[in-house]
Amino acid sequence: MKHGGDLGSALARFGGLASEWMDLSTGINPHAYPLPDTLPAEAWTRLPAQDALTRLIAAARAAYAVPGDLDLVAAPGTQAILAHLPHVMPDGGVAVVGPTYGSHAEIWRRAGRVVHDLTSPYADLPDDVRLLVIVNPNNPDGRLVDAQSLRHHAEQLAARGGWLIVDEAFADCVPGASVLPHLNGLPVIVLRSFGKFFGLAGLRLGFAVAPRALAERLTVALESWAVPGPALEIGARALEDTAWQDAMRARLADEAADLTLMLQMQGLSVFGGTPLFVLAGTRDAAALHRALARQHVWTRVFDYAPTWLRIGLPDGQAGRARLEAALAAAIAEP
Amino acid sequence: MKHGGDLGSALARFGGLASEWMDLSTGINPHAYPLPDTLPAEAWTRLPAQDALTRLIAAARAAYAVPGDLDLVAAPGTQAILAHLPHVMPDGGVAVVGPTYGSHAEIWRRAGRVVHDLTSPYADLPDDVRLLVIVNPNNPDGRLVDAQSLRHHAEQLAARGGWLIVDEAFADCVPGASVLPHLNGLPVIVLRSFGKFFGLAGLRLGFAVAPRALAERLTVALESWAVPGPALEIGARALEDTAWQDAMRARLADEAADLTLMLQMQGLSVFGGTPLFVLAGTRDAAALHRALARQHVWTRVFDYAPTWLRIGLPDGQAGRARLEAALAAAIAEP
Repeated sequence: MKHGGDLGSALARFGGLASEWMDLSTGINPHAYPLPDTLPAEAWTRLPAQDALTRLIAAARAAYAVPGDLDLVAAPGTQAILAHLPHVMPDGGVAVVGPTYGSHAEIWRRAGRVVHDLTSPYADLPDDVRLLVIVNPNNPDGRLVDAQSLRHHAEQLAARGGWLIVDEAFADCVPGASVLPHLNGLPVIVLRSFGKFFGLAGLRLGFAVAPRALAERLTVALESWAVPGPALEIGARALEDTAWQDAMRARLADEAADLTLMLQMQGLSVFGGTPLFVLAGTRDAAALHRALARQHVWTRVFDYAPTWLRIGLPDGQAGRARLEAALAAAIAEP
Repeated sequence: MKHGGDLGSALARFGGLASEWMDLSTGINPHAYPLPDTLPAEAWTRLPAQDALTRLIAAARAAYAVPGDLDLVAAPGTQAILAHLPHVMPDGGVAVVGPTYGSHAEIWRRAGRVVHDLTSPYADLPDDVRLLVIVNPNNPDGRLVDAQSLRHHAEQLAARGGWLIVDEAFADCVPGASVLPHLNGLPVIVLRSFGKFFGLAGLRLGFAVAPRALAERLTVALESWAVPGPALEIGARALEDTAWQDAMRARLADEAADLTLMLQMQGLSVFGGTPLFVLAGTRDAAALHRALARQHVWTRVFDYAPTWLRIGLPDGQAGRARLEAALAAAIAEP
């Protein structure tokens, strides 16, 4: 699967050192949660302990406002959860509301499932569909589906023994986006990503929230010691630090607004995104992507949408200024 | 699955603070590979990069003497590889040479396979068996199977479209134990654990070595960014440091010899193990295990073998002295 975030291919095609590049090809917060100066040595040396996992889960439950009747499962990244989903969810057809993050359709196709690409979250479900995947807010366009519509889908799926899968990878920085406070008794599994909002994508930490029986199947599938000791420790501290989270949400909203304004002044039409990335439209996104790459700024294009350019949030005022200069130079290219 | 290594149950039953306990319930090297003072921030903040993974794999290839025609797959712990094995290996019955590490039989039974428990690595294979699992050196008894016998098994399995699975979790500290240098073209997958020999079990890092097609299936199943950034960085440094590895092998052999001698002087009969743990026999292992726990020393007993006590290598001379005193007190209990 091709993703953003690996500068290797950029360096191979456009030269330069990794340190000279500004990587805006992902939606990872450039303001990382501050790492502790030292971690307890035991986090590295001992097998991950049950009490450290219990603390992490409790912190995630509070941060994500998870209802008491749902269970949380921690994993080394949401991608590791996706890898196991086909083995723990019921059989049947899958519908993915797209265009969206490509791994969703891919994991189900690879598992031999029929996958329907729906173009609207309000489309009728084909008869064979037992699983519906909605990324909310959506990547790359930021489209939001309201909780009532998600509940309606879940009720429809419940009637056929199916499940709704909601990927909330970018929900942390969009207040009110999460469906979690609105679930009760519905067959819904919600995926949360730690690394994006907290800016620690290398840590690999993600969660699934689900009713007990499904959470238990997923826990068993992920096997013992799934989350490394350092991730248990850092994840718990960050998720418990609600003051940092609140301040960061406000900061990201401000910076995303400044980014949008700057892009529009540079002639791009911004028509979607979340505070961690914007989706801009331009006549030939691939050409602008390459021109920016010649300025050592790495963005993301989509083969299914030749006018779309996804641009991650740059690192503060300085990053934004660099992006502005690169855009001006790219657009001025003959 | 119940494993050693989680002190939580020991504290709940026998009291004390975690810091007061000596945990000898696992086979993890007490002399951990020294952690770098700082890791590059990018190891935490960015998605794990392909070039960092390439470096780790090259270091593992050299350290484990992997033949050029075999591929390596890195994962967040060998347990994460086990979780995916039933989905990437061919169908058919499974034979596990036991008694051994319990997860092997468990993952296959959970996947709906018929699992035969073989009591000898030289037993004939039942007709339906397509997969044979041998832990080498074996846990908990340290039994070694020679490369020629392993090759013979692999040839037999090849004739029926099957595979040999060799778990070399403890091979690092037993020179000559690994089958890797002796494989050519045979259907064998070898599992290697990083955390045990390098004393960094919290890091979660493990490898599978297999012919290209199987390695590719496993890589796809494990999904993108399977290994966290810090593990890529620390794993590569440690695996490249062959001087540390050679010195550690010698040190562990010495300390295991001293441990064996001490245990025998305390009246235990040591009849197996590896340099990272010994397997001792005593009339009532559960009683001695509990008596040691009252001294806040945590060991491992086995419900299938009431006379077996597995004791991990203590931390140096001081650790050995503490174990000796605890044993003397435990044995002197009325």
